[in-house]
Amino acid sequence: MHVSENRLSVTHTRLLDQFRGGKPLALARAISLVENQREGFQDFLHTVLATGSRTRRIGFTGPPGAGKSSLVAELARAYRQADEHVGIVAVDPTSPYSGGALLGDRIRMNELATDPGIFIRSMATRGSLGGLAATTKEVIDLMDAFGFERVLVETVGVGQTELEITAAADTVVVVLVPESGDAIQAMKAGLMEIADVFVINKADRPGADRLLREIRQAIHLRTGHALSDVPAHHGVDLSRMMKKEATEDAPAPHEGGWQIPVLKTTAQTGEGVPELLAAIVDHRTWLEESGELVRRRRLRARGRVSDVVDRELHRLAWASPEVQDRMARGLDDIQEGRGTPYSVADTILRALLKDRGPLR
Amino acid sequence: MHVSENRLSVTHTRLLDQFRGGKPLALARAISLVENQREGFQDFLHTVLATGSRTRRIGFTGPPGAGKSSLVAELARAYRQADEHVGIVAVDPTSPYSGGALLGDRIRMNELATDPGIFIRSMATRGSLGGLAATTKEVIDLMDAFGFERVLVETVGVGQTELEITAAADTVVVVLVPESGDAIQAMKAGLMEIADVFVINKADRPGADRLLREIRQAIHLRTGHALSDVPAHHGVDLSRMMKKEATEDAPAPHEGGWQIPVLKTTAQTGEGVPELLAAIVDHRTWLEESGELVRRRRLRARGRVSDVVDRELHRLAWASPEVQDRMARGLDDIQEGRGTPYSVADTILRALLKDRGPLR
Repeated sequence: MHVSENRLSVTHTRLLDQFRGGKPLALARAISLVENQREGFQDFLHTVLATGSRTRRIGFTGPPGAGKSSLVAELARAYRQADEHVGIVAVDPTSPYSGGALLGDRIRMNELATDPGIFIRSMATRGSLGGLAATTKEVIDLMDAFGFERVLVETVGVGQTELEITAAADTVVVVLVPESGDAIQAMKAGLMEIADVFVINKADRPGADRLLREIRQAIHLRTGHALSDVPAHHGVDLSRMMKKEATEDAPAPHEGGWQIPVLKTTAQTGEGVPELLAAIVDHRTWLEESGELVRRRRLRARGRVSDVVDRELHRLAWASPEVQDRMARGLDDIQEGRGTPYSVADTILRALLKDRGPLR
Repeated sequence: MHVSENRLSVTHTRLLDQFRGGKPLALARAISLVENQREGFQDFLHTVLATGSRTRRIGFTGPPGAGKSSLVAELARAYRQADEHVGIVAVDPTSPYSGGALLGDRIRMNELATDPGIFIRSMATRGSLGGLAATTKEVIDLMDAFGFERVLVETVGVGQTELEITAAADTVVVVLVPESGDAIQAMKAGLMEIADVFVINKADRPGADRLLREIRQAIHLRTGHALSDVPAHHGVDLSRMMKKEATEDAPAPHEGGWQIPVLKTTAQTGEGVPELLAAIVDHRTWLEESGELVRRRRLRARGRVSDVVDRELHRLAWASPEVQDRMARGLDDIQEGRGTPYSVADTILRALLKDRGPLR
């Protein structure tokens, strides 16, 4: 692929100038370039990312209807009052099931859209909820490179892994509501692993205090006790769930000092928002002082390299006429009972690697 | 990869015998082999899939709480009464947000689990909701190969594409409830494209008839009228939404005769279930007579070949010590501002392709 700033076309060089000049229209054009993976998009990304990440990325995840958008809107307003520039990426599952609440939130967010210091981008995730699409992550990178002091990323939280969410944000705020269920469910969903801050929104509703206590208890159990001390509960083996899987580059993210705060907010009235802002500041300080920020950025870079390599291998493989031909004939074979997807994949891989290929 | 039945280990040959002998334990072991991608899993899949698909695969998709599990349980009971063997795959987003309704459904389904003619498998989709994970599709293939007359696949419906859902099922039943929203939202979510049968479940609740009429109208507009005749509604450009994108191998799936039925059911009482069973039979007949079944199976095979090739390229690439070394050094470079994910991916691809590699 040979990425380089020198390979930018005349159009993209002009776009780059406007992008570096902070023109929102240039950001919008750059996003469209990346989303559509048009010729040269990787050179453009390479060029603007060369200066490294400077933005504070804050992710908000949680169930539909938890009021994530309202909360994001409240925070955006607060950051604007401190004269920061704010980018917002709302990752939308294009689902019809979000209901009226979300629609209302979107309208609230639209009020923000008239503020030139705020840039809002809504992105669909067709076919990759949970796993953010590679292009979504690249759009967040673009907003980072554009120079916003803050980028707020809102995703519907369904089974995300630490790697996935770290791919988007430095600080992860998990937003729950009293109706979300109990702490056991939150643990089962892996939310304990990804949350840097827990927020129980719509805290004026019944059950908020119970959920707050449960989450605090679960955090306490998880970090404060030996695993064998944890009692079985609701038929679920908590101690097993709390054993973290060892991942390369990921040694026990929340150990070494960060105490996950559990806060109550009511986004509609703004109650609890100052405390949330303070918790985000505290987490940032911890990220920087503990070295965790470096670790997260490294993890993010690793994921991005892996995405780019896989995408390029896929593109190169399927662009080959020989591969296309073998696919077409292979599908005939499968249809006529002379092959399976595995034998066809086999012949395609042999064609690609010529039985001695450099992929060893 | 060189898949072949001859490459099966002694253990897997024994497993194959038991699998072909219809032993449920062998199916469970085969699923675990595939889920964990243990050595030889592709040879095993190749061997059992060689006979082709014989199962009727029926997919159920829709929002959480629509009662998909109850409906699946009702249908499974009916198929068992006809002495069919039934496999059920419930794809679970491991989300804490499914709520009590789903839990209740699971309990209802557990009653079925004591019937030796039914095999239930619940699978998590961490990080790939909407997009079914490659292994999930392979598990469904295994259940197909095991010889069930029916395989029922239940997925939470969030932004699935036609390709994704066809990867799992021949017939797609979209399950909505009066609370799901209106037909506009269903269209926006692409449900019109994927539904072979619409079911409005919990039809005893208010709004069922209104939703039924709306969906019927939307289907009628979509298939019966020129696009320009469609009025704008709720500020949404229906005619734009209804323009189908042309995809390779996918010429206008629902044209040429299939009239999408819209049915009302109440799974709790069994009301409407006989009509749903009849609609599924009708759709099967249409699939076979119109050639659509062949098209869908071909589309499915294409997706599976593509998955297997990509997975193998990924595995081969990242198993290379040279690639691992370049990644580690590249991450250092990025950290120190001497590179971006794109330049690092570039060096890795060069190593893989040796600047002349067969991936052309």
